Amino acid sequence: VKTEGSIQDLPAVWMEGSDVVMIEQRKLPGVFELLRATTTDEVALSIRDMAVRGAPSIGATAAYGMAQAQMLGEDLDTAAEKLKATRPTAFDLFYAVDLMQKLARTGGDLAEASRSYADNLTARCRRIGEHGEKLIRDGARILTHCNAGALATLDHGTALAPIREAHARGKGIFVFADETRPRMQGARLTVWELMQEDIPHALIADNAAGHFMQRGEIDMVITGADRVTLAGDAANKIGTYEKAVLARENAIPFYVAVPVSTIDFSMEDWRDIPIEERGEDEVLSVWGKRLSPEGARARNPAFDVTPAKYITGIITEEGVFKPEEIGGLKDRLGTL
Amino acid sequence: VKTEGSIQDLPAVWMEGSDVVMIEQRKLPGVFELLRATTTDEVALSIRDMAVRGAPSIGATAAYGMAQAQMLGEDLDTAAEKLKATRPTAFDLFYAVDLMQKLARTGGDLAEASRSYADNLTARCRRIGEHGEKLIRDGARILTHCNAGALATLDHGTALAPIREAHARGKGIFVFADETRPRMQGARLTVWELMQEDIPHALIADNAAGHFMQRGEIDMVITGADRVTLAGDAANKIGTYEKAVLARENAIPFYVAVPVSTIDFSMEDWRDIPIEERGEDEVLSVWGKRLSPEGARARNPAFDVTPAKYITGIITEEGVFKPEEIGGLKDRLGTL
Repeated sequence: VKTEGSIQDLPAVWMEGSDVVMIEQRKLPGVFELLRATTTDEVALSIRDMAVRGAPSIGATAAYGMAQAQMLGEDLDTAAEKLKATRPTAFDLFYAVDLMQKLARTGGDLAEASRSYADNLTARCRRIGEHGEKLIRDGARILTHCNAGALATLDHGTALAPIREAHARGKGIFVFADETRPRMQGARLTVWELMQEDIPHALIADNAAGHFMQRGEIDMVITGADRVTLAGDAANKIGTYEKAVLARENAIPFYVAVPVSTIDFSMEDWRDIPIEERGEDEVLSVWGKRLSPEGARARNPAFDVTPAKYITGIITEEGVFKPEEIGGLKDRLGTL
Repeated sequence: VKTEGSIQDLPAVWMEGSDVVMIEQRKLPGVFELLRATTTDEVALSIRDMAVRGAPSIGATAAYGMAQAQMLGEDLDTAAEKLKATRPTAFDLFYAVDLMQKLARTGGDLAEASRSYADNLTARCRRIGEHGEKLIRDGARILTHCNAGALATLDHGTALAPIREAHARGKGIFVFADETRPRMQGARLTVWELMQEDIPHALIADNAAGHFMQRGEIDMVITGADRVTLAGDAANKIGTYEKAVLARENAIPFYVAVPVSTIDFSMEDWRDIPIEERGEDEVLSVWGKRLSPEGARARNPAFDVTPAKYITGIITEEGVFKPEEIGGLKDRLGTL
């Protein structure tokens, strides 16, 4: 994550001693601040209340949380349970906690294992960028949704990794960033990241993506995902399904970029993915400002599922796959 | 328009002497306030800066503005020009101004003509409600976008007229209201109107409409429109096209409700409809609160076009028509 005003280059989350330290993403871009979690409860809260967000960053935070518990001599099963109870949709969370638990049972040092998990993730995102960059033509106008950038993935990003790479290679790209109501990750985080890298962009209301597709102003879509099924379906931030349907309707390729740790090889039917419903207030208010009348009601699903038929390709650190090829990767990749 | 705290029942705009008086829609629902426009410039500003909005209400405001100019002895061609220069997409604006100009040229009294235009519009919206109500089954869950309610149309509404009528007849309906970024007309105005009528509802992020359609929780969609072409295409608030594509993808009927004054019988190709692009700040900020970093860029088209192929039916005061039947109405209705 490149930060403003200095040459700092930080991951979204890291460890200092037994503290889990992270960029406080709820206050960006107005305030740049670090948050220090010193207990499992604090780590769990930072995930649940979205100080840290984005499936890969959540996975890394949870891995560090398990390492912290081991360092402090706490019960690892209790820690695992608390961490897994934070957010139901992102698969990396369960992947990382299960992996740490398994390693601990065979006497592994989780401080080292979690650091290597994080280093690994950063390297994977870089490879996602290299594979995905090949799909981007010179001058491409790319739509992205939510924030699947460095903040969401420790560094580089998933959806933003190919975009950064294409920009670095001088491809003259332009990015449309959906603002991504209700939590505005596009307006706050993606635009901030794009500005740090001097990538030309336009923030748009989520409502406007279809219009720009219809008018031929968008050449491709790249998003991240919080969980990919065996069939290549992708759960991601609410609104992703809308953009995918619109992309197909307008014959625009739609790519999902994820590390393999986001693929849930045990999930066959997308209808089984738990969809987190968050509080009504995120919709009734906008960033603390109440817009709707008192007594108004709202519903607030945080994720939706894009069935495989709308997905052109899934960009991973192992290469770009068609959704129907994901199942075949189970034996090769599902045992990491 | 039913208002809070009293038994007031006001239209969105009316005349007092030569003053054009309107409900100040930019401050709703927090503050209920009237705005009084005493000159053509003030009337034009109230339209341009959206104190009054919604194609039919804009049309009525412009008719009153022409009446005001006549009463004050001003040049009607100048007044017409100023009023027409406010917002390019809504057809009722041009329809109402042209009608008043034609009547004035034959010696008509615009005070009376504009009042009759408004009375007529209110009666038309009531008939839209009666025709549209027949399409709504008991217990239907209906999605609407933006605000095509009483505020947008003097009274009753266009999209909301059938909804009010179905509710009044005890059909046990439920309304999903898109919040409608960037100007939040759904969150501020539609939800407010639904609450005045005790209609069960949920406000949702624009991103969530597709999810609820995919999960079978929405039975039909009804929106208003700012301009309907001869071919039955409909320009409406940005995001309408997205919902229409998603509705068709999920086999959900999609209706557009408009008075005949919104049909532009001279417009054959929807690509010719001028689409207003508003300032970047509406996207970079939310209701005065800056969310995006300084220096960020945005694009902000205010409308999009839903081609006829996505529209199940167009609900008018003359009945419900298929888009392809609109052209045939030209001789019968195009000379009002």
